[in-house]
Amino acid sequence: MRTTMGWQAAGPTALRRVSLERRDLRPDDLAVQVDYCGVCHSDLHALHAYDPRADAPLVPGHEFTGVVTGTGPAVTRFSVGDRVAVGNIVDSCGVCAMCAAGQENFCHAFPTLTYGGTDRQDGSTTLGGYAREYVVRATFAYPLPSGLDPAAAAPLMCAGVTVWEPLRSLGVGPGSRVAVAGLGGLGHLAVKMAVALGATTTVISRTPDKRDDARTLGAHDLIASTDPQQMAAARDTFDVVLDTISAPHDLGPYLHLVAMDGTLSLLGYLGPVTVEAMDLLIGRKKLSSGGSGGRRGTAEMLQFCADNSIAADIEVLPSSQADTALDRLRRNDVRYRFVLDLSDLD
Amino acid sequence: MRTTMGWQAAGPTALRRVSLERRDLRPDDLAVQVDYCGVCHSDLHALHAYDPRADAPLVPGHEFTGVVTGTGPAVTRFSVGDRVAVGNIVDSCGVCAMCAAGQENFCHAFPTLTYGGTDRQDGSTTLGGYAREYVVRATFAYPLPSGLDPAAAAPLMCAGVTVWEPLRSLGVGPGSRVAVAGLGGLGHLAVKMAVALGATTTVISRTPDKRDDARTLGAHDLIASTDPQQMAAARDTFDVVLDTISAPHDLGPYLHLVAMDGTLSLLGYLGPVTVEAMDLLIGRKKLSSGGSGGRRGTAEMLQFCADNSIAADIEVLPSSQADTALDRLRRNDVRYRFVLDLSDLD
Repeated sequence: MRTTMGWQAAGPTALRRVSLERRDLRPDDLAVQVDYCGVCHSDLHALHAYDPRADAPLVPGHEFTGVVTGTGPAVTRFSVGDRVAVGNIVDSCGVCAMCAAGQENFCHAFPTLTYGGTDRQDGSTTLGGYAREYVVRATFAYPLPSGLDPAAAAPLMCAGVTVWEPLRSLGVGPGSRVAVAGLGGLGHLAVKMAVALGATTTVISRTPDKRDDARTLGAHDLIASTDPQQMAAARDTFDVVLDTISAPHDLGPYLHLVAMDGTLSLLGYLGPVTVEAMDLLIGRKKLSSGGSGGRRGTAEMLQFCADNSIAADIEVLPSSQADTALDRLRRNDVRYRFVLDLSDLD
Repeated sequence: MRTTMGWQAAGPTALRRVSLERRDLRPDDLAVQVDYCGVCHSDLHALHAYDPRADAPLVPGHEFTGVVTGTGPAVTRFSVGDRVAVGNIVDSCGVCAMCAAGQENFCHAFPTLTYGGTDRQDGSTTLGGYAREYVVRATFAYPLPSGLDPAAAAPLMCAGVTVWEPLRSLGVGPGSRVAVAGLGGLGHLAVKMAVALGATTTVISRTPDKRDDARTLGAHDLIASTDPQQMAAARDTFDVVLDTISAPHDLGPYLHLVAMDGTLSLLGYLGPVTVEAMDLLIGRKKLSSGGSGGRRGTAEMLQFCADNSIAADIEVLPSSQADTALDRLRRNDVRYRFVLDLSDLD
C-alpha cells in the first residue's frame, strides 16, 4: 500500500486531515499527484448524508487535476510528469452496450464512482480527490490539454461535462437558442460552452443584478425569473433550457420557456420532479436530465475547452480551508466554483 | 339559426335528447350531417365535471364523420355530398407561429375546441358531435379518403391523430422499436400505425390474455406489466414508449423500458406526473406528452390510414345508447372504441 494525506469526513460538516492508504499500482494504474480539486454540490450532499458511526470512510472530491507520478507496467498512454484530469467515474464494466458506446456513466453494471464507489477488483470503498494522491486506472484519466490552467480546469471534470453532454446530445450550435437557469458552478460553464458553440444564450436568474456577470460570461441577455412579465415575454422561445438550479423548484415556469419541440434538461436537482403533462403537450416539449459524462464526451469536452479557452471562474483556497469552501457553497457564496489547492498537504 | 337534434348532458352520467341550435352558415362554413361519432375518454371527463346548474350546455363528441349538406359561399374545397371528418379542434387564431406551422392544436391564443370551446366570432359555447348536424369552418373539416369506413374512421380524428403525432415527431419508421402501454382506443390504433410505419411493436399490458389481440393488431410481442421478470428483461430496449394508460400510474417502470436517447410519450393521462430525474438521466431519456394534432398532421394521418387500410376496431351503438357506451367505457369494457350512429336522431 501507498500512503498519502487527505481530508476525511468527521461528520456532516467537518473534515479531518488524515493519512490515507492508496493501492499499489496495478499494471494499468497511474499514480497522480492531486494539485487542484473542485468543490461540487455532490460533496455537500455526500457529507450531509454521512454517518461516521455506520458508513465507510468518506473523502470527497471528484473533479481534479494533477501530475502523473507513477505508471503501472501496462500503461502506454501516460508518462511520469504528464498533466492529467480525473472526473467522477474511475471504472466501469467495459463490456455492456453503454460502455461500448463511450457512455460509461450509464454502465449497466453501474460505474465505479471516484469516491464512495466500490473498487471492481478489491471491493474497497473509493476515496476521493480531497487528497494529495489518487491512484486511478489510466483508462479513466484524461490528458490535460496544454493551455488549460490546471486549477480552473478541475471543475470541467464534473460541472463541465455535466453541461457539455446535453449541449451536444441536443445538437446545440449556431442558431440555437439556449437558456441557462441558475448561474452557479454548472450554469456559468454552460453559458461559456453554449456561446462558444454559437448559440444565442440567455441566463435565467432570480437575481437580476447578475446581468453584468452574465454579459461578461458571454450571455446575450438575462431574464429575471422573479419578473412575470419578462418570463411571459420569453415564453416558447428557447430550443434548450438547461436547468442547473440545485434546489427543488417548480419546473412549470421553465417548461413554459421551451420552444416547440424543445427540451428542458434538468442538471442541478436530481430528485423526484413533478410536471404537468399539459406543459409538455402544448408545444410538444421534452423533459430530460443529465449528469456527468462518458469517456468520449469528456475527452471531447476537454479539447473543446482548450480550443475555445474555456475554464471555470474559480476561487482557489488551500485545502485546509475546505470546510470554509463547503460552508460558503452551501450559502451560494461563490462565483462560481471553489477549487482546493492540495499542496498544503505536503 | 338552424336546429338539429342531439344528446345534451343532464348531469355527470346522464344524457338527454334535445333540440339544439346551430349557427347559420358563415361564408366559410360547412353544414355536416353527422353520421358517426366516437366516444372518447375526454367525453367521460367532461361529463364527470359537468354541473348542470352552473355550466353552459354540454354536448360531447369530438371525433366524427359525415356528409356535407350545405356550404357557405366562400367554400371551394367541399361540395354538398362530400364525405368529411372533424376532430377536436374547429378553429384557431390562424396567425401565430404555431398556426403558421400547421400545429393549430398549440395555437398561442388557444384553439377552439369542438365542444365546450368558445366560438371566436359570436362567443357562444361550442356543442359537440353527439348530434345529427354540426356547423364547422371548412378549414377544420377534412375530406374523408375513399376506402375508409366512415364509422371506423371517426375515432381516427382524436384517438388516431393523438398517437400519430408522436409516432411522426419521434421519427418512428423501419427499424424503430416501439412499445405501446395500454391497449384501448388510443393503444390499438398506435399498434396498427407503428406496425404500418415499419416499427417492431410491442404491447405492454396488465392483462397478458390480450396477447392474441395484440398479435391480431400486428404487434410482435406482449409484455405483462405485472411480471417483473418480463419488465426487467425488456429494460432499455424501446426507442419510443407510447403510454396510453388513462389513469394516473407510476411512470418509473415505463421509463425503464426506454432505450438510450429514447422517449416516453404520455398520451392517456394528462394530469400532473412525477418522475425520478435519475430515471431520465441514466440513458439520457426524454419524457414528452401529446394529444390531438394540427391540420397538417391530421390530413397526413388520414391519408396514411387510407393507404394502409387502418381504422379503429369499433363497436357501433345507436346514439340513444350513448349512456351505455359511456358506462362501459368507464369500466374499460370495449374493444376498442365505441362509435355512436347518429341516424336514430332523424
